[in-house]
Amino acid sequence: MTLPDTETLRLQPAGFALHVTLNRPQVKNAMSLQMVQELLAVLDAAAQDSRIRAIVLRGAQGHFCAGGDIKDMAGARAAAAKGDEHDPFYALNRTFGELLTRCQEAPQVVVAVLEGAVMGGGFGLACVADVALTLPTARFGLPETGLGLVPAQIAPFVVQRIGLTQARRLALLGLRFDGAEAVRLGLAHTLCADTEALDRTLQETLTQIRHCAPHANRQTKALLLQVGQVPLQTLLDAAAATFSQAIRSAEGQEGAMAFIQKRPPLWAQDH
Amino acid sequence: MTLPDTETLRLQPAGFALHVTLNRPQVKNAMSLQMVQELLAVLDAAAQDSRIRAIVLRGAQGHFCAGGDIKDMAGARAAAAKGDEHDPFYALNRTFGELLTRCQEAPQVVVAVLEGAVMGGGFGLACVADVALTLPTARFGLPETGLGLVPAQIAPFVVQRIGLTQARRLALLGLRFDGAEAVRLGLAHTLCADTEALDRTLQETLTQIRHCAPHANRQTKALLLQVGQVPLQTLLDAAAATFSQAIRSAEGQEGAMAFIQKRPPLWAQDH
Amino acid sequence: MTLPDTETLRLQPAGFALHVTLNRPQVKNAMSLQMVQELLAVLDAAAQDSRIRAIVLRGAQGHFCAGGDIKDMAGARAAAAKGDEHDPFYALNRTFGELLTRCQEAPQVVVAVLEGAVMGGGFGLACVADVALTLPTARFGLPETGLGLVPAQIAPFVVQRIGLTQARRLALLGLRFDGAEAVRLGLAHTLCADTEALDRTLQETLTQIRHCAPHANRQTKALLLQVGQVPLQTLLDAAAATFSQAIRSAEGQEGAMAFIQKRPPLWAQDH
Repeated sequence: MTLPDTETLRLQPAGFALHVTLNRPQVKNAMSLQMVQELLAVLDAAAQDSRIRAIVLRGAQGHFCAGGDIKDMAGARAAAAKGDEHDPFYALNRTFGELLTRCQEAPQVVVAVLEGAVMGGGFGLACVADVALTLPTARFGLPETGLGLVPAQIAPFVVQRIGLTQARRLALLGLRFDGAEAVRLGLAHTLCADTEALDRTLQETLTQIRHCAPHANRQTKALLLQVGQVPLQTLLDAAAATFSQAIRSAEGQEGAMAFIQKRPPLWAQDH
Repeated sequence: MTLPDTETLRLQPAGFALHVTLNRPQVKNAMSLQMVQELLAVLDAAAQDSRIRAIVLRGAQGHFCAGGDIKDMAGARAAAAKGDEHDPFYALNRTFGELLTRCQEAPQVVVAVLEGAVMGGGFGLACVADVALTLPTARFGLPETGLGLVPAQIAPFVVQRIGLTQARRLALLGLRFDGAEAVRLGLAHTLCADTEALDRTLQETLTQIRHCAPHANRQTKALLLQVGQVPLQTLLDAAAATFSQAIRSAEGQEGAMAFIQKRPPLWAQDH
Repeated sequence: MTLPDTETLRLQPAGFALHVTLNRPQVKNAMSLQMVQELLAVLDAAAQDSRIRAIVLRGAQGHFCAGGDIKDMAGARAAAAKGDEHDPFYALNRTFGELLTRCQEAPQVVVAVLEGAVMGGGFGLACVADVALTLPTARFGLPETGLGLVPAQIAPFVVQRIGLTQARRLALLGLRFDGAEAVRLGLAHTLCADTEALDRTLQETLTQIRHCAPHANRQTKALLLQVGQVPLQTLLDAAAATFSQAIRSAEGQEGAMAFIQKRPPLWAQDH
């Protein structure tokens, strides 16, 4: 696996999983433009490597991600003041939305481990995870409107995640809430009592992913993301073709054989 | 009421309700191609008969439906091996999606009674019921990716049912869960403590359906299914025309008269 | 602020909030055509006044709104019987849908205070509130199909509010339910134990709105309502432009300054 060099991220491949740690603990892992670009490069590299079946996103030293980086914003302000022809605020903001889109569409199962601050951009990242585990003490919120700003790239993913009904209240009141409420809202899936339970649940999640066939899982995720984007009958036609390919493939044949022989399939033995 | 002859289904008309029992208990009512075709024929016949206002779907002997039938799959494999010009896997899979679509759009109120195995295709059927009652001991799951396959026709209905946020986790981890979790996820509506409570809740549900005007209920269901499929303003225009027709109809006049006379409307006396 | 004269509504501007009380307590604030038209006029006036940041909808004397007014229906019936060329039922129904649409899209944060009857049209109004507070004793329901009618203008907003899965059961069984169930379904956000708690929570909600920047909140609400209506990438492009405008605006600069100076922004001091 060829992974890019990164300064703001710590990368740890472990078997079929790639562990990505946001690593700017001095600012609660606030999302700088450099971090966004490094995450995009990592997702690109991982998308090319079919051996990577899971991506675990976590923050260093007890915080997931406190939002956007203030220095980048100041830099954009300076560039704008100098009359930069491009709109530096537009570019900074839109690039983060590109990250959310690419993370949402990553062929891997994306697992987010939520602790401490899960604010603004960190909140957005949590919204595109296939599996989100949280501590009760995690703090969630969209602080943008309290600062005179708009949660521009994040809001659409919040609506997709928890629905308009809850998203409008959270965003328009600028609410803060904890892990239990995040699970109640459907933002996160599983409440883990403490760090030990969090680590154990993460291991169980990885074991569950290991038992699912790699290519079938990629196809299933792509299918799920298309629901509502294309007419249902068109989607069902394409899905039947995908099914037929899957069952004829080496993976589908191994799955049938393992079932008959009452043994785990080969992909479940991959560590 | 003219109903088709069926081998895999037991049909019991009871007043305004048609009880349909999946009846292959030796394989936990696994969905064979024959069963799919018989269900399609029953839904077609029922759609022609305005006296049928409810369809109750249940499985024989303590299981709802364990998924797709393995023998059909083997048959399709043999046909494919012989070089059948058609794609037998495609046809088998797509026909099941047609069943889900037609069951979703059935003009009747569809009530699913969930017990025992509610897996794969059975899970899909549960997702298109207007009312889903479950025992705590029912077992739900999408086992496809664990077998190297894709929940191709089912996945779109799962997303429509419980949203992308929960569907992606269930499908990509191949999770199994019980009735209480099914209610928490919104897959089923009502948790019934035991078989007696299940039967009682089913009777209450049928009584509630009986109090709703037959044609108005059909129009309301069709309207609900169009939300998000056509632009909202177009839908509201058409809905106003539907409202005007309803209030001028014999049913609407009977509803107003019964309200004024403080008596149940005629349709509520139908047994 | 120039507000229209109203007979069926009591209007009380209070700082940045406009309190609108449905005021026909003799009929549990049932929605007459006049009330619909007066509400539309109030929403229009408020939309022109950027100082109004919140609209509080409440019913007089312990009920929110019991649904449509029976006298209007009788009037429409008389007009229809006289052979009115227009369809008076269509017009009556469609105008209410226009109210729901405009209330949904109001640039203010709309807060609904739900007590007593929240039926039919009142149920619809609750579905378009950004924040819905409820007493446990409030009674919710869609009685239409029990009267031979269709919840025509309301049903689409119910699906948007709580999803198809729950909406189909509520509408097709004509269910009644209380405040705790309304919160469980996501129809309302917050369950308040009694009137005192309701008033206190309303005050807290207004304080939270006050801390959010007025223009940023309007932009955020418009953005949230567009999700799913336009392609995601198009929406993200437009949102980045909105973000850039916001950060360059007087509001965005005041937000940054207040953050640096550790003081509340000016808009949070508006009473």
